[in-house]
Amino acid sequence: MANDPNTQDLALVDRYWRAANYLSVGQIYLMDNPLLRETLKAEHVKPRLLGHWGTTPGLNFIYAHLNRIIRERDAEILYICGPGHGGPGMVANTYLEGTYSEIYPEIGEDEAGLKELFRQFSFPGGIPSHAAPETPGSIHEGGELGYALVHAYGAAFDNPGLVVACVVGDGEAETGPLAAAWHSNKFLSPVCDGTVLPILHLNGYKIANPTVLARLPDEELAHLFKGYGYDPIFVEGQEPQAMHRDMAAALDIAFDRIAAIRAAAKADPARRPRWPMIVLRSPKGWTGPKEVDGKMVEGHWRSHQVPVSECRSNAGHRDILEAWMRSYEPDDLFDASGRLKPELRALAPKGERRMGATRHANGGALRKELRTPDINDYAVAVDDPGSMDAQATKVLGDYLRDVIRLNAAENNFRVFGPDETASNRLGSVFEATDRVWMADTLSTDDHLAPQGRVMEVLSEHLCQGWLEGYLLTGRHGFFSCYEAFIHIVDSMFNQHAKWLKVARELPWRKPVSSLNYLLTSHVWRQDHNGFSHQDPGFVDLVANKGADIVRVYLPPDANTLLWVGDHCLKTWNRINVIVAGKQPAPQWLTMAEAVHHCEAGIGIWDWAGTEEGLSPDIVMACAGDVPTMETLAAVALLREALPHLRVRVVNVVDLMALQSPHHHPHGLPDADFDRIFTRDRPVVFAYHGYPYLIHRLVYKRTNHPNFHVRGFIEKGTTTTPFDMAVMNELDRYHLAIEAIERLPVPGERSVSMVDALKGKLAEHHAYVREFGEDMPEIRDWKWPHPRP
Amino acid sequence: MANDPNTQDLALVDRYWRAANYLSVGQIYLMDNPLLRETLKAEHVKPRLLGHWGTTPGLNFIYAHLNRIIRERDAEILYICGPGHGGPGMVANTYLEGTYSEIYPEIGEDEAGLKELFRQFSFPGGIPSHAAPETPGSIHEGGELGYALVHAYGAAFDNPGLVVACVVGDGEAETGPLAAAWHSNKFLSPVCDGTVLPILHLNGYKIANPTVLARLPDEELAHLFKGYGYDPIFVEGQEPQAMHRDMAAALDIAFDRIAAIRAAAKADPARRPRWPMIVLRSPKGWTGPKEVDGKMVEGHWRSHQVPVSECRSNAGHRDILEAWMRSYEPDDLFDASGRLKPELRALAPKGERRMGATRHANGGALRKELRTPDINDYAVAVDDPGSMDAQATKVLGDYLRDVIRLNAAENNFRVFGPDETASNRLGSVFEATDRVWMADTLSTDDHLAPQGRVMEVLSEHLCQGWLEGYLLTGRHGFFSCYEAFIHIVDSMFNQHAKWLKVARELPWRKPVSSLNYLLTSHVWRQDHNGFSHQDPGFVDLVANKGADIVRVYLPPDANTLLWVGDHCLKTWNRINVIVAGKQPAPQWLTMAEAVHHCEAGIGIWDWAGTEEGLSPDIVMACAGDVPTMETLAAVALLREALPHLRVRVVNVVDLMALQSPHHHPHGLPDADFDRIFTRDRPVVFAYHGYPYLIHRLVYKRTNHPNFHVRGFIEKGTTTTPFDMAVMNELDRYHLAIEAIERLPVPGERSVSMVDALKGKLAEHHAYVREFGEDMPEIRDWKWPHPRP
Repeated sequence: MANDPNTQDLALVDRYWRAANYLSVGQIYLMDNPLLRETLKAEHVKPRLLGHWGTTPGLNFIYAHLNRIIRERDAEILYICGPGHGGPGMVANTYLEGTYSEIYPEIGEDEAGLKELFRQFSFPGGIPSHAAPETPGSIHEGGELGYALVHAYGAAFDNPGLVVACVVGDGEAETGPLAAAWHSNKFLSPVCDGTVLPILHLNGYKIANPTVLARLPDEELAHLFKGYGYDPIFVEGQEPQAMHRDMAAALDIAFDRIAAIRAAAKADPARRPRWPMIVLRSPKGWTGPKEVDGKMVEGHWRSHQVPVSECRSNAGHRDILEAWMRSYEPDDLFDASGRLKPELRALAPKGERRMGATRHANGGALRKELRTPDINDYAVAVDDPGSMDAQATKVLGDYLRDVIRLNAAENNFRVFGPDETASNRLGSVFEATDRVWMADTLSTDDHLAPQGRVMEVLSEHLCQGWLEGYLLTGRHGFFSCYEAFIHIVDSMFNQHAKWLKVARELPWRKPVSSLNYLLTSHVWRQDHNGFSHQDPGFVDLVANKGADIVRVYLPPDANTLLWVGDHCLKTWNRINVIVAGKQPAPQWLTMAEAVHHCEAGIGIWDWAGTEEGLSPDIVMACAGDVPTMETLAAVALLREALPHLRVRVVNVVDLMALQSPHHHPHGLPDADFDRIFTRDRPVVFAYHGYPYLIHRLVYKRTNHPNFHVRGFIEKGTTTTPFDMAVMNELDRYHLAIEAIERLPVPGERSVSMVDALKGKLAEHHAYVREFGEDMPEIRDWKWPHPRP
Repeated sequence: MANDPNTQDLALVDRYWRAANYLSVGQIYLMDNPLLRETLKAEHVKPRLLGHWGTTPGLNFIYAHLNRIIRERDAEILYICGPGHGGPGMVANTYLEGTYSEIYPEIGEDEAGLKELFRQFSFPGGIPSHAAPETPGSIHEGGELGYALVHAYGAAFDNPGLVVACVVGDGEAETGPLAAAWHSNKFLSPVCDGTVLPILHLNGYKIANPTVLARLPDEELAHLFKGYGYDPIFVEGQEPQAMHRDMAAALDIAFDRIAAIRAAAKADPARRPRWPMIVLRSPKGWTGPKEVDGKMVEGHWRSHQVPVSECRSNAGHRDILEAWMRSYEPDDLFDASGRLKPELRALAPKGERRMGATRHANGGALRKELRTPDINDYAVAVDDPGSMDAQATKVLGDYLRDVIRLNAAENNFRVFGPDETASNRLGSVFEATDRVWMADTLSTDDHLAPQGRVMEVLSEHLCQGWLEGYLLTGRHGFFSCYEAFIHIVDSMFNQHAKWLKVARELPWRKPVSSLNYLLTSHVWRQDHNGFSHQDPGFVDLVANKGADIVRVYLPPDANTLLWVGDHCLKTWNRINVIVAGKQPAPQWLTMAEAVHHCEAGIGIWDWAGTEEGLSPDIVMACAGDVPTMETLAAVALLREALPHLRVRVVNVVDLMALQSPHHHPHGLPDADFDRIFTRDRPVVFAYHGYPYLIHRLVYKRTNHPNFHVRGFIEKGTTTTPFDMAVMNELDRYHLAIEAIERLPVPGERSVSMVDALKGKLAEHHAYVREFGEDMPEIRDWKWPHPRP
């Protein structure tokens, strides 16, 4: 199907490219005189010149050629702009094709619109200098680098009609996440998924350095990308006419190969194809000033940002700018009104085929509600609280299995995890599906298939990035991870939260499904893997984000986890963090109680306390499964030794309920908070993570001075589960001791009880060091009180 | 120099390997009967079986063969154990070579020692299941995966005599940081640096999945590693005799090539060599049980952890374990006393050539004090406070340039940064050195050389990992990074902090230099790059770590930054975080004042306040350069409008001074804190980062209820610098308004002043949106009061 585009066609493409370049320069520099209808004056130039030219002409070049392919083949293409600060190019192109003015009518297709288009760029109240939520056609922020390719693959999964053209900058290509993402082709089915066409853009330089890949010989690059499983096509040069010809040919070859691969895959769907990719070598700052103040600019890192910088104060600089902009011949591109000339406008695809208008980049517009089963069908029967054990994540796994089944026809739900789905006890999902796998297989393999719904790779970066790309294109997902290692994607979490915050403020962006984390194999049950695996701090990072975006849930048992998991999957435009254990643990609440408790987010567990309608002497609060168990065990000790003590037990599922409603929509009103935690009684709070977070959340509450929080205090090693709690003084004995010591008037019985508890701690210490496991009375402990 | 090891030699190597495998299995399973002198009984087996067999036989195989090379060539080798949970192998080998008992004399080389060696593994009070600080010969924790190769390169820099043999697991190889780290060979000089010999160990499986690389054909792997710039040697199989022969030959070839490369490099030092690497394919759980309960174990992921698990309760399982252990023929390996037989002991290298005993793995033992210049030589002359501007990081850059010069002979100091050294205004270092670069160069390049002291790559992971490896082998370094993107290495920071915490508790581990971060291009001056570049939350993560490890400094100007930078470079076993700006900004303190202020960490700036020896009406506190400037500007407004108001100005450089001394050694005693912040006056605190952190640090202080903290509240975009402060209500107008509103009895003048300030905010708002820059009175603002 490759046809040779004729010289005339390519001359039009060149003019279109010039138009995009012109608009890009205009955005960086001008606040007036957008069509250069008069000689450029100082006051036409923005006072602060911000923006990045270097990468832009290459991005525009690619965009123009993809437009040609779309028109010729009726291809559906999503453009991922990997290089940072490529904003001017993305804005210019979506403006030229008409999308921009449709979305932002105040930026019309005329001279006034151009003026505003230029002015708003990198301007207060305007738009950022990189592709961002504001940019039509974008699902990928060009700020922090490294995630272009992994987002591209996320977008392609389960989108068989889509080609994701992913421009990877050679700076970005040095990052770890990007380097790993090339291997995503081992997880992409040529039958069920779309195509990712990576375009590695070697413009040679970062901010102030050459790039590694640009300084490798072609032979070495060819090895590298063949080794990554691709079939690279090289396009290299700087003379525009030759480059247009070569790029058009390269794209024709690539699209022909893609068509051939997809056709062949129907016969042999498990065979991994060698997908094409393009290596494009072109000068940084291509078509910009060759030299400024005697220094090389085009083809050098000096073109990274603003190639000529004193255009308001230095007439010589301004002349360079004007000559540069006029070199694109604006009068040849725009008509008298400032509108793109019709023969150029005709080069843009139509309607949703325009890359700025594809609904895949506004995934909420494509999103279908996830079908979920009734959580009651998975409920653990809890007769007396704490009377039996269950594995919370195992129960959730059964539920997720059926989510997969219910949405099998839509192919719009995937489960992600770094090789830990089974380890995290979600293995039931393999009753409904397989792990995605396109590399070689052996007869001894277990649940590997090209079109599985479970994505496992030993890279939290890939899991997170794939999921982000999948969600932003309108689908649903669930990410389970060891709690400690989720910090690997702290920065990706940050960036996704930022994306959501901005996207929520744009009416044209439709809501996308929430990003749901299950953090399990958590700090208290990493006793066997040791200190390196023990870190509950991700929640602290999450709590810094805007209250409209984040939620943190700490369900204490299986039924509460079911409610929380089900709830999170039904939300949108949020990031939900669920922390829950995978080990057999006591079950506290019936399903009905769990629903009631979780809907409130926080509650008094009457059945566990002894206040009997009276004001409590002490509040024992807890958040998290292990802290809940230890708190209840402490309460059991107190009830036995001090039967007249009035104890209240409070459990927190929704951590944000602790904040003031001024800070978070889930925050309890002060009156309710005071009712639960009292205004003046000691509160011993056992928390799953770093204790400071609780102080930070409640410091404005009336009773805060009486809050005594225990949590993880960086004491960790390889030991027993209960010893982890003891080391961090979060265990039942320490909690009971603290409770007694916080009482205003500890009686004689209290003093002897403290001695007994300290004896228990010594006994524990000796036992674990002799036998390497916890005392039977700890392992076999059950809450001793039947339901009242 | 390659000589063919004879069959007899290799038979001895095989016995040595069997000994290591035997000890590895023993550690996982036994607490008694270590030499199987009697039939295995239930009580000999640990009650909780924890540990990982799968990777271990391969690690032992490599170790035994490296021992042979060391003996034959007198090579100096550091072994980096990349695969997680390879602890049993590392412990077994360092025990066999005698290092373990030298460091831990309680684990002797006899039966009693063996029993304790076995018992302590993954046992409470014992040692972790992966290579860790406790492991002799290790600089690399086997917990979180991805950093083996980058640590290896960090260790090799400036160590020309050293070969770092780096075993990369095929699980780990899927991570981003590892995928990027292969390119480190573009930064390694064959003249000035040592050698990294990567050994990619394809045992085929992760926890419950095949690995990607193991399921690629050799041809594709060869492409990949040639593309990464290596010359791969393949060793594949499972029959021990053939594998010994092939591995010995591969190592001989590799070491011959290394010798040839190093010899050739003397003539052509800028030519990038193709270093050898080894791809070793061997079965997971090699030599372990073939099958358990009818399921394949050897060569399958089922051998990942404990291949046969019910050895206490299930006699059949115990029989499998006993047969497995006896297959190594312990009586052929250990003498009657339990000591390794002499012909095997002779296979271990001697003294510090033993990989467990190399001082490179205990870098503090090799560390030489860094020479530093006198900071007074770089001091900015400050006549009246705030009367002139300077660029703080530029001044520090001059100092760093001279640190490089002073230590040039030792070659033991490097500066790291993701392509941002010049952008962060540390460019003066290029007067003394170059950027390290071994890829191709052009005539237009700027300061690239094989042996530069500045390491730049667009990967925070590589910068961090190289620096960690460099520090842990006894050298010094400095990492400058954009503040927002340091989150990329949150998890690496975590793991390094964990390493330091444990290493500090081991008397045999000598102190290593601190890891020093300069976070610049910070949130308040990322106005031009926008929201994606704005995040001050790294400090929150840091504050969760142990107080003995972390320090956070917020110097408000150049002279304080000089003191802080100099101080941090002289510390050890810590992680120092410095947050400072790179833009021209007011200078407040003379060098003498800066020294005094920084030594205290916090102080009252008498010259700025108006309390004149009386008790203040209000405390205006600040931490960070922009908050300090805005606070002083607010104070200037207050002084002008309300001349009778008694204002105290407090500046915090050392954030940890705010904590209670109970929590941090730098914490101010309560009496001092109360003296500075008063016990009852309102405190308006302008903080660089998220305001919650200040509450978290001071919630136990007397005056905490009167603290009103402002900081970054997730309001960001592309705008002007001052508008960033306004958006987050940290600017002079909001601070002054808050101060007035917090006064107990605001007078009439106050009310009218608030109106005036609100007018100023409106004026600012209109101005920036019209002109795109801040009002001249903001840009040109100077502190109006001369030094008293």
